[in-house]
Amino acid sequence: MPHPFDESIHLAPTADDTWAGATHPAYANMIGPYGGTTCAVLLRAVLLHAARQGDPIALTVNYAAPIADGAYVVQAQPLRTNRSTQHWAMQLAQGGEVCASGTAVLAVRRPTWSAPEAEPPVGMPAALELPRAPAPRHPPWISRYDMRFEPGQMPRLGGGVEQTHSRTRQWVRDEPPRALDYASLAAICDVFFPRVMLRRGRPAPIGTISLTTYFHAGPAQLSAQADRHVLGTARGLNFRDGYFDQSAEVWGDDGTLLASSHQMVYFRE
Amino acid sequence: MPHPFDESIHLAPTADDTWAGATHPAYANMIGPYGGTTCAVLLRAVLLHAARQGDPIALTVNYAAPIADGAYVVQAQPLRTNRSTQHWAMQLAQGGEVCASGTAVLAVRRPTWSAPEAEPPVGMPAALELPRAPAPRHPPWISRYDMRFEPGQMPRLGGGVEQTHSRTRQWVRDEPPRALDYASLAAICDVFFPRVMLRRGRPAPIGTISLTTYFHAGPAQLSAQADRHVLGTARGLNFRDGYFDQSAEVWGDDGTLLASSHQMVYFRE
Repeated sequence: MPHPFDESIHLAPTADDTWAGATHPAYANMIGPYGGTTCAVLLRAVLLHAARQGDPIALTVNYAAPIADGAYVVQAQPLRTNRSTQHWAMQLAQGGEVCASGTAVLAVRRPTWSAPEAEPPVGMPAALELPRAPAPRHPPWISRYDMRFEPGQMPRLGGGVEQTHSRTRQWVRDEPPRALDYASLAAICDVFFPRVMLRRGRPAPIGTISLTTYFHAGPAQLSAQADRHVLGTARGLNFRDGYFDQSAEVWGDDGTLLASSHQMVYFRE
Repeated sequence: MPHPFDESIHLAPTADDTWAGATHPAYANMIGPYGGTTCAVLLRAVLLHAARQGDPIALTVNYAAPIADGAYVVQAQPLRTNRSTQHWAMQLAQGGEVCASGTAVLAVRRPTWSAPEAEPPVGMPAALELPRAPAPRHPPWISRYDMRFEPGQMPRLGGGVEQTHSRTRQWVRDEPPRALDYASLAAICDVFFPRVMLRRGRPAPIGTISLTTYFHAGPAQLSAQADRHVLGTARGLNFRDGYFDQSAEVWGDDGTLLASSHQMVYFRE
C-alpha cells in the first residue's frame, strides 16, 4: 500500500512539462492542503521531468492563493542547464489561475573541502525518550507527522500568555515512518508552528506567502537518515505590520545538517 | 547627475511586461555584473510595472548563467493579485537565453501587533568611528560601497589560515551616499564576502546560485534610514561538496531590522 505522503504528491503526466494532481484528505489543512505538500509536489514535478539533471539544492515556493480541495495542474519548466546546476520554474494552477509558483535549482555535488559551521543542537533528549505530541483531530495533516517536542515546549496556544521568543526544538518524522527523500524533507521544513502563535500564546489567522529551503543533504546523507526522526529547530526574527519571518534547521540524528529553511508569513490582528 | 546605482538598474520599456537594460561598468564583478545589481534590476521591473500593488516583502533570484557585459532584457509578469499580496515571476535574458530568474511578492502592510525577536547587534562602534575599508581596484563594484568592518574583521584572504567560523559584522552604504530604497536594500544584501573565503583564508572560485531576501522594512523605516550606513551581520551554516549557504541581517542604525537574506553559493576546490 502506498504511503499517504506518496499519494498526496502523486502526479500523472498530461502534456510536455505538465502533470495532473489532487489534494489529499490526509494532508488537509484548515483551508486547502498543508503547505509542505504544496512544496513537495512542485519539487516532485521537477524530479519526475525527463530533462532532470542533479538533485535539489534550493527550492522557493510562493503561495499565491488558497488551493481548493480537489484537482490541480502542475507545470515544471527547465530554464537553463549548466555543468553543475539546473534551473527550473514551476506553477500549480486550478481553473487556469495560478495558486502557487516557485523556482528550483538542482545541483551535481562533487567532493570538495567541506566543513560544518553551525553547531548541532545539544541537550535534546533522543526522540524515543520523549512522548509523541498528541495530534488534534483538525487539521488532519498534523496527524501525518510524529512530533516530539523538547520538554516544556509543547505549543500551548490557549493561554494568551505572550512569550519573549519563539525558539523551539522538536523531533519529527512521517507517520507512518517513511524513508527520507527530497520531497519529504521539503515538506518537513514546513511543519514548524507559526511563530506568531508561540509569541502571542494564542491562535491567529496566518498564511505562508513565500518559503525557501536549502538542501544541505546529498543523496548519501538522506539514505543514512532513513526513516528515523530528524531534529528541527525554529525561530523568528521580526513581527511587523502583518508579516513575520521564521527560519528552521533540520538535522539528522547523527548531527548532520540536512536542510535550512526560511519563510515569510502573513498574519492578521 | 544620476547616481551610478540608478544608472546600473535603469530600464527602458520595450513591450508589455518587458524592459531593456544593460550592465554598468561601475558595478562590474570578476565576470559580469555584481549579483546585487541583478537582484535590484529584477525587483525594479516589478516596481515599475503598471499593475504593481504594494511594496516588496520577499524576493528570490536564481543566477542561471553568467551575464555578459552589455545589453539584457528583463521581463516581469504579474501572476496573481490578492487583497494583501501580489505575486510576480521575473527573468533576465541575453540573446534569448535565461541568465537569471526570480520571483517577488509585494505586500500591503497594515498595522498589527508587532514585536522584534532578534536582538540588534551590540558592541559595534558607530560607522563614522571606524575607517572605511580600502577597496581594491578590481572588481569595480566594491568601490561603490563604503564598508566599515568591525575592528579585526577586515577580510584577509591571502594568508591561507582557516577559521572555525565566518561570522562578521560591518557597516555599509552606497558610495556616493544614496537614500535607501527597496532596490538598493536588495543589492546591499549581497555585499557580504563569500563565507567560504573567510573560513579558508583564501580566494576561491564561487558563484551565488540562489538568493532570497525578506524585506522587514516598510516605506517608513526606509525613509527614516535615509542615506546613512546600515549594519550588516553575516554567517554560514554549512559547507559541503561544492555548495555553502550564507545568511545576512541588515539593521538600521536605530536597531530596526530592515532585511534578512539567505543564499546558496557554488564553490570549487
